[in-house]
Amino acid sequence: MNWLTFLSDFGLEDGFVAACHGVAARIAPAARVIDITHLVPPGDVRRGAAVLAQTVPVMPPAVHVAVVDPRVGTARRAIAVQAGPGILVGPDNGLLSWAITALGGAVTAVALTSEVLWNRPVSPTFHGRDIFMPVAAHLIAGTALADAGTEIDVADLVMLAQPTSRMLDGEAEGEVLSVDRFGNVQLSIPAPAAAKLGISFGSPVLIRCNRRELIAPYRETFGSAAPGELVAFTDSAGLISLAVSSGNAAETLSLPPGARVRIAAAPPA
Amino acid sequence: MNWLTFLSDFGLEDGFVAACHGVAARIAPAARVIDITHLVPPGDVRRGAAVLAQTVPVMPPAVHVAVVDPRVGTARRAIAVQAGPGILVGPDNGLLSWAITALGGAVTAVALTSEVLWNRPVSPTFHGRDIFMPVAAHLIAGTALADAGTEIDVADLVMLAQPTSRMLDGEAEGEVLSVDRFGNVQLSIPAPAAAKLGISFGSPVLIRCNRRELIAPYRETFGSAAPGELVAFTDSAGLISLAVSSGNAAETLSLPPGARVRIAAAPPA
Amino acid sequence: MNWLTFLSDFGLEDGFVAACHGVAARIAPAARVIDITHLVPPGDVRRGAAVLAQTVPVMPPAVHVAVVDPRVGTARRAIAVQAGPGILVGPDNGLLSWAITALGGAVTAVALTSEVLWNRPVSPTFHGRDIFMPVAAHLIAGTALADAGTEIDVADLVMLAQPTSRMLDGEAEGEVLSVDRFGNVQLSIPAPAAAKLGISFGSPVLIRCNRRELIAPYRETFGSAAPGELVAFTDSAGLISLAVSSGNAAETLSLPPGARVRIAAAPPA
Repeated sequence: MNWLTFLSDFGLEDGFVAACHGVAARIAPAARVIDITHLVPPGDVRRGAAVLAQTVPVMPPAVHVAVVDPRVGTARRAIAVQAGPGILVGPDNGLLSWAITALGGAVTAVALTSEVLWNRPVSPTFHGRDIFMPVAAHLIAGTALADAGTEIDVADLVMLAQPTSRMLDGEAEGEVLSVDRFGNVQLSIPAPAAAKLGISFGSPVLIRCNRRELIAPYRETFGSAAPGELVAFTDSAGLISLAVSSGNAAETLSLPPGARVRIAAAPPA
Repeated sequence: MNWLTFLSDFGLEDGFVAACHGVAARIAPAARVIDITHLVPPGDVRRGAAVLAQTVPVMPPAVHVAVVDPRVGTARRAIAVQAGPGILVGPDNGLLSWAITALGGAVTAVALTSEVLWNRPVSPTFHGRDIFMPVAAHLIAGTALADAGTEIDVADLVMLAQPTSRMLDGEAEGEVLSVDRFGNVQLSIPAPAAAKLGISFGSPVLIRCNRRELIAPYRETFGSAAPGELVAFTDSAGLISLAVSSGNAAETLSLPPGARVRIAAAPPA
Repeated sequence: MNWLTFLSDFGLEDGFVAACHGVAARIAPAARVIDITHLVPPGDVRRGAAVLAQTVPVMPPAVHVAVVDPRVGTARRAIAVQAGPGILVGPDNGLLSWAITALGGAVTAVALTSEVLWNRPVSPTFHGRDIFMPVAAHLIAGTALADAGTEIDVADLVMLAQPTSRMLDGEAEGEVLSVDRFGNVQLSIPAPAAAKLGISFGSPVLIRCNRRELIAPYRETFGSAAPGELVAFTDSAGLISLAVSSGNAAETLSLPPGARVRIAAAPPA
């Protein structure tokens, strides 16, 4: 395994991401890095967790480093977790938790206490460069996970609450999980809910949000919609989503992450 | 050939680009990816086509994947086209057309119908991850182009109209082809037009746009201009361009892509 | 040595960075590129110099290409400089100077005059693609530094003035060296100044800037601060910095790069 993926909130205008790449290159020259994103909004652990969880399943077996760490340098633990074919490395603040689930659950976990693997001296504010990335690179270079620190109980890992989604009486209720670059609104409602509600491709969906009611067709893709048309569809992560063709659904509907949305089959006109 | 280039309008804040990298890594671990840009404005096929066409000529022989695909999931074809030393993979919506020309023209083309090469199940909204990138990776891993799908007539490929440029009576007329990060305005007027108009380095150029007339020197580079000075020059793609030294010509002159501009030799003062 | 790092002000929305990657791939296919950043504000040589100097020390031995070059195409020299384990390639406008110092000082330098190594024809406005990157790639592919051009006296290299920092009577005065994505304000005051001023972890710091006086604790990390709290700390480059926990210190304190700041031990309350 020589793939290393990397997600952070470091941004692209400073040298922080490159410093981590440099550290990895020195320790594990054969490592090959795939940057997931470094534009997680600063400190937004929940957004980082969502992007990570939706991306790691399509990656090759890899060590996945993720750093969104507003409490860097405090007592929060640094961890590495074996989950399915991957090892996730980062702060124990919930950032890794949805990815752990997406990869099949934690098998073993260690607290990163083996200082011999770190980049010394350790900056109290840049554990990405000095702890997470060097440990990940050592894992790629052959260090066993057990040698990265002290084993901890996987049941003790900090897990973020899963985004809520529930079936009510003829309705599915969820929340906005993420908004992508195109303004598409991803709901925490999995695609099978549509079938349970009697919604099929081409049939109308009743959408309730922000005290409004809207009707949109449920389509296979927004690519066939007329410009400006609101469409419900199943996105590439298997979740029901809303798009405005050639527009921005999140702005049009005022739906930021966390907003609550209900969907149901629309009554016949 | 193990180089793979990648252009899209996916942006950098989500995990979409990384998902495509991951898919390529799994199918063709030896592939080496050069990202061209992922900041094409959403759905702007013309802008994507321009950046792609100006970049592929300096690339090593490669498979070039490009995805700006507002009609993803509809009947528009997915294609792979051999052109010069490269193979271009993407939607048949004109995005690839200027790059095909820049590489010397299409030799053969196939519609991507070999589902065995795809990432299954295919999301109707993410053909980048599920069709274009896996097919490209298979081509790098040794699959023959002919095995990627059904051969189609290269004359049937969707081609964008070339940006217009014409010589009038002592004038060259063109349009703004692109505006770069520095606000430099690239015109669809090739450098040899300057000589035909009697414009040489150091001589003044009459610029007509937005019902205004401006005079600027024609220089080898804007690097020697005084801050704030308007300059005409030949850019790195061989096209006549306008710059404001230490400033932003596109903003100063209100010249977005598509705006019409005429140039001529300025009369002696 | 096959590592190549790359910093510029080219931005990520055009194909400029990719064109340079392509040129390197053709000349030195074995080169492995680490992008430092391409979001240096256009023409901001000082900002480019600061990011480069703080990043190269953690890189593996490499050829470092840096291009922030507002006077491209004029008489300013193109140079390559051996410094410590690295070779820096770029314009002789001071951009490389702080990195040269950070790597231990210039050993030898050449003006890039060996046209045989360039990408021909050379665009007068894109030396990154046509001179700096091809020369760097040839250096990685085995060309000796001495063969890249004419040796020049290292004492003649253009050096930016070091950011000022001085100890006054019980005070340290410096300037804002950089502001990162998180709004953290990095001062040109090295960490040992704190000890000299009698400031230790937990003790209060008196900060004078913009005709205001503020008091903030000196902490190991901002991660333990309450949201909104102003904190002084030693950053990952070993410089005293100011942060507002979960906030933006540069905006809160109106401290752009170049602003002057004084710190001292605060008197007991």
